[in-house]
Amino acid sequence: MIDLAAELNSASEKVNRFLNECLATGKPEELYEAARHIVSAGGKRLRPFIVIESCRLVGGDPERAVPMAAAVELVHNFTLVHDDIMDQDDKRRGVPTVHVQYGISMAINAGDMLFAKAYQAALESQPKGLSSKKTLQALETLTKAILRICEGQAMDMDFVKRETVGEDEYIEMIGLKTAVLLEASAIVGATVGGGSNREIHRLGRAMMAAGLAFQLVDDVLGLTADEAVLGKPVGSDIREGKKTLIVAHGLGHMGKRQKDILLRGLGNKAAETGEIEAAINALRSSGSINYTARKADLYARKARRELDGFPASETRSLLLALIDYVVARDR
Amino acid sequence: MIDLAAELNSASEKVNRFLNECLATGKPEELYEAARHIVSAGGKRLRPFIVIESCRLVGGDPERAVPMAAAVELVHNFTLVHDDIMDQDDKRRGVPTVHVQYGISMAINAGDMLFAKAYQAALESQPKGLSSKKTLQALETLTKAILRICEGQAMDMDFVKRETVGEDEYIEMIGLKTAVLLEASAIVGATVGGGSNREIHRLGRAMMAAGLAFQLVDDVLGLTADEAVLGKPVGSDIREGKKTLIVAHGLGHMGKRQKDILLRGLGNKAAETGEIEAAINALRSSGSINYTARKADLYARKARRELDGFPASETRSLLLALIDYVVARDR
Repeated sequence: MIDLAAELNSASEKVNRFLNECLATGKPEELYEAARHIVSAGGKRLRPFIVIESCRLVGGDPERAVPMAAAVELVHNFTLVHDDIMDQDDKRRGVPTVHVQYGISMAINAGDMLFAKAYQAALESQPKGLSSKKTLQALETLTKAILRICEGQAMDMDFVKRETVGEDEYIEMIGLKTAVLLEASAIVGATVGGGSNREIHRLGRAMMAAGLAFQLVDDVLGLTADEAVLGKPVGSDIREGKKTLIVAHGLGHMGKRQKDILLRGLGNKAAETGEIEAAINALRSSGSINYTARKADLYARKARRELDGFPASETRSLLLALIDYVVARDR
Repeated sequence: MIDLAAELNSASEKVNRFLNECLATGKPEELYEAARHIVSAGGKRLRPFIVIESCRLVGGDPERAVPMAAAVELVHNFTLVHDDIMDQDDKRRGVPTVHVQYGISMAINAGDMLFAKAYQAALESQPKGLSSKKTLQALETLTKAILRICEGQAMDMDFVKRETVGEDEYIEMIGLKTAVLLEASAIVGATVGGGSNREIHRLGRAMMAAGLAFQLVDDVLGLTADEAVLGKPVGSDIREGKKTLIVAHGLGHMGKRQKDILLRGLGNKAAETGEIEAAINALRSSGSINYTARKADLYARKARRELDGFPASETRSLLLALIDYVVARDR
C-alpha cells in the first residue's frame, strides 16, 4: 500500500533538517531571518521529493541525494522571493511575502542569498560520497534550469503587458518558468543515483510533463480553490493580468458580453471583489477552466506513460501517486 | 618595462570575448539585452585580470583561467545590478542603471540571469582542461564569496538606517561586500593554476587587502573625482546616507558646526547640489577624506608585502603595478 503523504513527509523532514542547518543564524540576523521566512513558511517540498525518489528509482542511495534535494528547494524558494516582488504578490504559503515583511531591498538580497545557498547545498554532495564528475553534472543541470526559469519569468511578465497570448506560448512559458525545475529535479536525482542516460532522460520527460500539469492545476486552483486552503487571494492572477491558459482560452472562445466581464477584472489592480468573481464565473461559463483542467490531465497521462517505462517498484508507484496528487490536490 | 594598461586590456579582450558568447542573443530578447546592458557598459575588468594573473603567478596556463575570470566578472555584474536597485542608483559606468533603463522587475530578473550565467561560465572550465576536483574547489570559493557579498550588502543597508557606524564595522562591511570578491578572484585563479595552499592563501590575503584599499579609494573618488570621469554623480554616497569610513571619521571628529553641515546633506535625497558640496567640504576640512586615503595606502602596503612573498617575476610586477593603480586611479 502506497502512502504518498507519509513518504512526502519523511522526505520533507530530511530536507528540512538540511535546510535548517544551511540557513542557521548568520550575520546580519535580519538577512537570515528573511531567508528563513519563506523556507520555513512551508511548501509541499515536491521538488526535493522528486530528487530523492528519482535517485532511488534508478537504484541509488537516497541519502546521497539530500544535498541536491535541498539545493533544488532553495532554487525554488529564491525564485519565489524574487517573483513575488516582480508580481507584487502580498501573500504566499499563508503568510506575508518576504518583500512585504522585510522590504523590497532585503527581499532581493535574501533571494540572492538563497540562490547562493542552493549551490552551497549542492556542493555538500561530495562529502556525502558523490563523485566530482557527477556533482558537476548535477550543477550543470541545475544552472541550465535556473537560466530557463529566468527566461520563463521574463516571458510571463511580457504576457501581462500583451493583450492576447497564444495557448502554445503559454505552455512554452510555464515549461520554462515552472516545469523545468521539476524536470531538473528528476534529472539531478537520477544522475546522483547513477541512472543510465536513457533512465535520466525518461524521468526528465516524465517530470517535465508532470510540471506542466502541476502549473495548469495551479492556475485552476488560483481561481477555484478555497482561499484559506490556498494561502493567497483567489483570483489574484486575474487581478494581475496573468495570461494563463484559462484566460487565453477564454479570450479566444467567449462572446462579447462575457469577454467584457472578463476584461473588467483582468489586469485591474483596483477591481472590486465582485468584478474578480464575475470574471472567474465568465471563465467557468466559457468552459475555459474545464478546458485547462482537461489539458492538465493529458499532461499527467503523458507523465504516467513515461514512468510506466520503468520496471514496477514501490518507488515507481510512489511517483505515479505523486502525479495523481498533482492533478487531484486542492491547494 | 611593465605596461599595466596593455595587460589589463589584453585580459579584458579575452574575457569580453567569452562574456559576449555567454550572453549572445537568447529569448526573450529584452532579458538578454538588459543583461548585456551592464556587462557591455564597460568596467575595468580588474577581477578577471586578478584571476588570470593569479593563475599565471603560480605557474598555471592563463588560458585555462578565462572561464573562471568571466564567472567572477558575471558575479560582480549581477551584484551591481541588484545593488543599484537597492541603493536607488540611477547611473553606473556613465549609462543609466539596468532598472532605470528596463524597470525594476526586469533588472531583478537580469541580475538573476547573470548570477546563473556566472556558474555556467565557471562550468566551462572543464572543457578547457581543468580537473573536476579543482573546478568544484573554485566553485566553492565563488559561492562562499557570494554569500559574504549578500551579508555585506545587508550590513551596508543597515548602516544607512543607523546614526553612526564604527570604523571597524565599516571595514568589516567592505571586506564582505567588496574585498571578498577580489580575494576570491585571487584564490580561484591560483587554484586553477595549481598553486600550493600557501600560495593560494598568500594571494588571497594580498587581494583582500587590495580590495579594502580599492573600496576606500572608491569612497574618496565618490566625493572628489571629476563627475564626467566617475560615470555617476559626485556625492551620491552622501545623498544616500552611506556611512563610509569618511563619514564615520567625520562624525567622530567634527565640531558641531561642521557636523550640522554634513548632516544637512547626509541621507537627504532632496538635498540641493550646494548642500552636498558643503557636506563634502566639511569632510575635507575635518581631514576625513585624507584620513581615508591614508588608510587605503596602508592596506595597499599590506597587499604589496604579501606579494613580495612570491619570487620576482613579470607577473608579480604586474600585480604590484595593479596595487599602485588601485590607490592612484582617478575613477
